[in-house]
Amino acid sequence: MEGFPEKGIKMGNMTIKDIAKKCGVGVSTVSRAMNNHPDINPKTKELIMKTIEEFNYVPNNSARNLKRIQSKAIAVLVKGIGNTFFSDIVSGLERECQKKNYSCILQHVEEQEDELDIALHIIKEKKLQGLIFLGGSFSHPKEKMEQLEVPYVLSTIRTAGENCEQYAAVSVDDFKESYKMTEYLLQLGHERIAILTAPKEDESIGKLRLMGYAQALKDKKIPVQEELIGYMDAKKDRYSFQTGYKLTKELLKKTDFTALYATSDTLAIGACRALKEAGISVPDECSVAGFDGMEAGEFYIPSITTIRQPVEKIAKATAELLFDMIKGKEVPRQLVFEGELLERESTAFSSCHESVK
Amino acid sequence: MEGFPEKGIKMGNMTIKDIAKKCGVGVSTVSRAMNNHPDINPKTKELIMKTIEEFNYVPNNSARNLKRIQSKAIAVLVKGIGNTFFSDIVSGLERECQKKNYSCILQHVEEQEDELDIALHIIKEKKLQGLIFLGGSFSHPKEKMEQLEVPYVLSTIRTAGENCEQYAAVSVDDFKESYKMTEYLLQLGHERIAILTAPKEDESIGKLRLMGYAQALKDKKIPVQEELIGYMDAKKDRYSFQTGYKLTKELLKKTDFTALYATSDTLAIGACRALKEAGISVPDECSVAGFDGMEAGEFYIPSITTIRQPVEKIAKATAELLFDMIKGKEVPRQLVFEGELLERESTAFSSCHESVK
Repeated sequence: MEGFPEKGIKMGNMTIKDIAKKCGVGVSTVSRAMNNHPDINPKTKELIMKTIEEFNYVPNNSARNLKRIQSKAIAVLVKGIGNTFFSDIVSGLERECQKKNYSCILQHVEEQEDELDIALHIIKEKKLQGLIFLGGSFSHPKEKMEQLEVPYVLSTIRTAGENCEQYAAVSVDDFKESYKMTEYLLQLGHERIAILTAPKEDESIGKLRLMGYAQALKDKKIPVQEELIGYMDAKKDRYSFQTGYKLTKELLKKTDFTALYATSDTLAIGACRALKEAGISVPDECSVAGFDGMEAGEFYIPSITTIRQPVEKIAKATAELLFDMIKGKEVPRQLVFEGELLERESTAFSSCHESVK
Repeated sequence: MEGFPEKGIKMGNMTIKDIAKKCGVGVSTVSRAMNNHPDINPKTKELIMKTIEEFNYVPNNSARNLKRIQSKAIAVLVKGIGNTFFSDIVSGLERECQKKNYSCILQHVEEQEDELDIALHIIKEKKLQGLIFLGGSFSHPKEKMEQLEVPYVLSTIRTAGENCEQYAAVSVDDFKESYKMTEYLLQLGHERIAILTAPKEDESIGKLRLMGYAQALKDKKIPVQEELIGYMDAKKDRYSFQTGYKLTKELLKKTDFTALYATSDTLAIGACRALKEAGISVPDECSVAGFDGMEAGEFYIPSITTIRQPVEKIAKATAELLFDMIKGKEVPRQLVFEGELLERESTAFSSCHESVK
């Protein structure tokens, strides 16, 4: 391209040479400015960056550096995208990728699909540099995990199976947080505490949360009763309003309880709806607690008592850990964040324990 | 690679030749099978596809056909990702991309960012073949729109400005649907109907929905009163629970009304919360209506009367239109889907019109 069109005119084919010429500097100076190299005069850098912006110049890396372009992509595999909790995480991850100039490919995984098969496929197809797994029960044989040839991080999931120490994971301590919530309900005087939980075969956060519930009961010498456990159906259910509604209806048919602990806020909201339809008032006749800290629970009537997961921190840490692993600066490790118990309107003292009030 | 490892052993470097050898066919037959070519014996195809699956073979297109890999990506630019309505659309779009073997890059646009600037940037950076715009007010000068060098579709948004006929768009008729909802509230006997709507400067669906509301009132000879309109703040607000809560609180301070029409379900849920805190019962003392048909509104207490947008159809049609435009089979056009008014618990006859009951 010869000469410079006036400002405002379409500039599709501006090259780095044109920018250098315009600024009266060499190409390498422009390159240093763009790559945040410290060895450059700040004023020169400012001029270059302003010129780049003014002419809408985008470095055509693909032509001169194919490898870099190909590799600047990661994928987020989301199982259970219907769970709005994940959309908060996804938007956080996406923002972090943007900062680092990585493409973030969002890949939906159906409930009955194997996320690892999909991962193996798209890593090759899309030449990915890294992967983030979000949602799903995530229990895969070690041999299969080893086929993943790029770094990956489990975000807000954790496998309860063996070898879990080998995988990079960022999450809360699901066992501990679940114990905390159950203990809180026990302190309110509830003894018949129903739980809505993952399918029986789950080896992930669902199992950990159920274990936390069971441990808290045991520590209070209260036996865990199978009839109070509403398991999801592995084939049909997921952490959704609809599932919470359905499982609560089923529990109400066969037993009674003064509190219900739903292991996600979506399940809790569905449960409240089922209780309302059964003429049971929340929290007067039955307390309901959730997990996650979704915004919807805050505005629900009654607002939902929950364990808030620090979504922004988890998303940021997940992306940073992955990028550091991609650069070889970090090995897989487990980062655990603290959840926060938020007491809201959906829980109250058990009416069987009026004296406690 | 020589020979074939046994099944189950890691097969990272399987080539199309290996698959052909394994199946006792030529390479072109394998290619026909993979590309769904009609000219192939069904049994042979089955054998090939089974073998491909068994050995986890992924065609290494990037090596032999760089152009194709580079071009198999589109981006979805989402403004207002906090709006959970969009996560349903995104997951629908993502599924359609998967079917067509396109990468779907999710790009978040901050409320104060210009989606067109971002679009111009990433089209070049990521060598995109197409774009989908989701959310935002979307009013840009024609000259700037023309800089977009790839096909694009506006999904669930529509510009109310001039030249709108030039852009491909898939949505409901926001004016008509909004008219429908307002008319429904009028039929319930409400005359003082407040509305929560987009910022005054909006030129997109917000304006269209406000116009539908105003027209329905005018057709009933009811003057539109500025004091009943809760405008978002363009700098701070978005279609969220929090905004609905805030705007309703503000309206309650300065006026009264028997119905409130929130132009999204998220706004409606926030509004219900503010009304509850003000001691106003929904729907007995104030009806609340939303827009979108989000699942959260169905499980809310009270469940939210709304206009359901056919999310799955819109997502599918958006993706199909875009892919057809990419292939040159289709020119930009506007597809309009019918919304559905869902009467739920949050609306009732105006108590000022007992006789109507």
